[in-house]
Parts: sequence; structure tokens; C-alpha cells
Amino acid sequence: MDQLERLIAIEEIKQMKARYFRCVDTKDWQGFADVFTPDAEFHSTWVSNADGGIIRGNQEIANIIGGQMEDLLSVHHGYMPEIDVTSSTTASGVWAMEDYLKRAGGEGVRRSGGSGTWSMHGFGHYHEIYEKVDGEWRIASLKVTRIRLE
Amino acid sequence: MDQLERLIAIEEIKQMKARYFRCVDTKDWQGFADVFTPDAEFHSTWVSNADGGIIRGNQEIANIIGGQMEDLLSVHHGYMPEIDVTSSTTASGVWAMEDYLKRAGGEGVRRSGGSGTWSMHGFGHYHEIYEKVDGEWRIASLKVTRIRLE
Amino acid sequence: MDQLERLIAIEEIKQMKARYFRCVDTKDWQGFADVFTPDAEFHSTWVSNADGGIIRGNQEIANIIGGQMEDLLSVHHGYMPEIDVTSSTTASGVWAMEDYLKRAGGEGVRRSGGSGTWSMHGFGHYHEIYEKVDGEWRIASLKVTRIRLE
Repeated sequence: MDQLERLIAIEEIKQMKARYFRCVDTKDWQGFADVFTPDAEFHSTWVSNADGGIIRGNQEIANIIGGQMEDLLSVHHGYMPEIDVTSSTTASGVWAMEDYLKRAGGEGVRRSGGSGTWSMHGFGHYHEIYEKVDGEWRIASLKVTRIRLE
Repeated sequence: MDQLERLIAIEEIKQMKARYFRCVDTKDWQGFADVFTPDAEFHSTWVSNADGGIIRGNQEIANIIGGQMEDLLSVHHGYMPEIDVTSSTTASGVWAMEDYLKRAGGEGVRRSGGSGTWSMHGFGHYHEIYEKVDGEWRIASLKVTRIRLE
Repeated sequence: MDQLERLIAIEEIKQMKARYFRCVDTKDWQGFADVFTPDAEFHSTWVSNADGGIIRGNQEIANIIGGQMEDLLSVHHGYMPEIDVTSSTTASGVWAMEDYLKRAGGEGVRRSGGSGTWSMHGFGHYHEIYEKVDGEWRIASLKVTRIRLE
């Protein structure tokens, strides 16, 4: 893999991660599923399950995250990627991130048991592994570490 | 257009958009006019005119946006570009964006009818079309869609 | 220096600046020292000294900034770089930036004289000069200009 191929891979991964953010904030859950590999792992601090908070599979990730976001207004931003292309089909990356979540108190459909207005503003880093599958870079593993939550 | 030329175009468009943000927040209205093509269209949700909120022409865009920003403190940020180079002189792009606007209540020159302190914090996406004119990438069309306004 | 080498340099500088942000917010002061040249200049608005607020030398920069950040929670983000590669070993750049600082009032170890909870939210630009030293791009000079401080 030469230097030009490496730069192309980095730009493709950045654009794929841009789709990740745009899909989650515009609630395009099929587009969101498509940025992950079929057997991707999503390490969630919000989900508790038999796998210790790990959601497996791109459709399951989209279903669970989409369900959590259903009545939330969200803004997710990523910054300052450090992407390391380890082969022509594998790479890893760290991104700084910031997210705002807000439950649409009186404005949206409220779930039973919903507690009205609630909001969260968080900061941290994504630690990700990428694989090129069917000619497209996708996220194979995603973990978030937090430096601040409000 | 080969892969290297495509990457160069993407980096040049990113740097041009960086000038866009720096010029608007430092109130450099001539620099702001220069990032647009002479006949650019700016689809504004803040301006109502005979063209349905479309401002035409780079000098007119700079005049109108500059007038609106005159007594405002502004911070505009862009993130996560998805830039598609469609030929050696045309491209399109989507950017996540965030903007803060604040009227300098007691600090600046207040317009007649100004209501003192006022601020806005918004989130959304730019949807843009670019053209290379006189050897420089410029914005030919700009629209903002919002996901949140506070 | 050809076009490909220029793009590689720009990507390497972006990744180095990403390390700068990650190291300061995770308090990795050795990593922070390593992104500067040995004789780097840091133009600080927070430090007053015989050199008019200029801190010289990468270890001294890490010591002084690390000391200031000791009991602060910090989030620093950079956006929209305009990087100009001026030779195979020199470059300059402007970045939009945003920083949050918060003193951990009741949560952390408080310094004597600490005034409890305090926070700052700032916006501005980094103006930087880079040099390639020992095969790595590093910051040789850093200044911040502010457009807003809260």
C-alpha cells in the first residue's frame, strides 16, 4: 500500500464517519447500519446486557441505538481524527467527540415513564477499528471514553 | 481527474471553507465575498425577499450577511465534511455545523429597535455546491438545514 | 516537494495537532511535550513572565501548562485548519478553536487559595508555525487569538 492509497483510505474513513454522525442526528437508521460491518461490536455504556454492554451486528446496533434516540433530539460532532491505516483493508482511529442529547419534553411523543425535559452534554473520544468490506470502509468496533459529562 | 487530483481538490475546498468561517467570525467581509463565485446563491432562512430568501451574487451576500452580523458576536464551526468531487471544476459537499450568535447588549453599538442581549445557539448542516473559478474553489450555492435551535 | 508530499505533510500535521488536543485533555504531559520542537515558543495570555508571556522550550511548556491544568477539567477542540506547507520541513497553520475549562470544585484536590467552582468557555484561533524535526512535524510556535470568552 503506497502513500497515495493511504491518504485515500484516510479520506474515505473520514467521509464514512461523517455519514455516521449525519445518520444518527437525522435519524436515518438504515444509513447508520450501513456504516458498520455486519458483525460489528458497539461497546455501549448505556446498554446493559449479557455481553456486558456490547451490541453485536450492524442491524442490532441500529435497532438499539435508534430505539434509544427515538424521542431524543441529538447533536453529535467528531473532531481531530488520528487514523492509522494498518493494511489495505484494516485501520484504527481515535476521534475527539462531543454530544448533546435532549428529550423533547412537551414537543415530541413522550414514552410512558418519560421524565419530561432532560438533557446531556458530553465530551470524550471514540476508539475505533475499521475494515474495508465490499469495497467500503466500515466500523468494525467502536468504544467511547468520556472526559466530561454534564 | 485522477485520485491525487481528487484529494487535492478536497483539501483545497476544506481550506476555502475554513476561510469562510474565519472571515465571518472576524468580520472580514471582503475575504468572505471572495469565497463565493460571482453569481453564487445563498439560501437564507433569515432574509425574506422577492427571491424567497435567496441572496444572489458574492458582493450582495457579503453586504447582507455583513449587515446582519454588524452588532453580533459570532462563532461558526464546521465539522465532518462529505465532499464529492464531480469533475475537475465542480464538487458538492455536506458539513455539520454549529453557530453561536450574541448581540453585544451594553458593549457594542446597538441598532435602533435592538432588544439588548439576545443569543442563539444552532446546529445543522450546510449543503453546498462548489465551482473552480479562476483557479480557486468557491461556493456556488449554500443552504442550511437545522436540527436544533436554542 | 510535489503535491503528494504536500498532502502527506498536511495530514501528518493534522494528526500531530490531534495528539496535542488529546494529550492536554487526558493530561498526558510527556505526550504534550513531544508535539513541540525542543526550542518551541508558546505565546500565553495566561502566563506573565520576563519574556512577556512567552514560554520557551517544550519541557517548560508542558510543565507550566500542565501545572495550570492540574486541578482543571478541560476540553479543547480544533476545527477547520488552513495549513500552508512552505517547504519539506516548514509549514504554518491557522485553526479555529474552542475550549472549556472547569475547576473541579468539590470533586478534585483543590489548591490552596482555589476559589471553588469556576469555569470558562472560549473561542478563537491558533496561529502556528511547524517544523519537521527528527522526521516528525512539531509545533515551533503557537499563539492564540480570542473572539469570545465567557
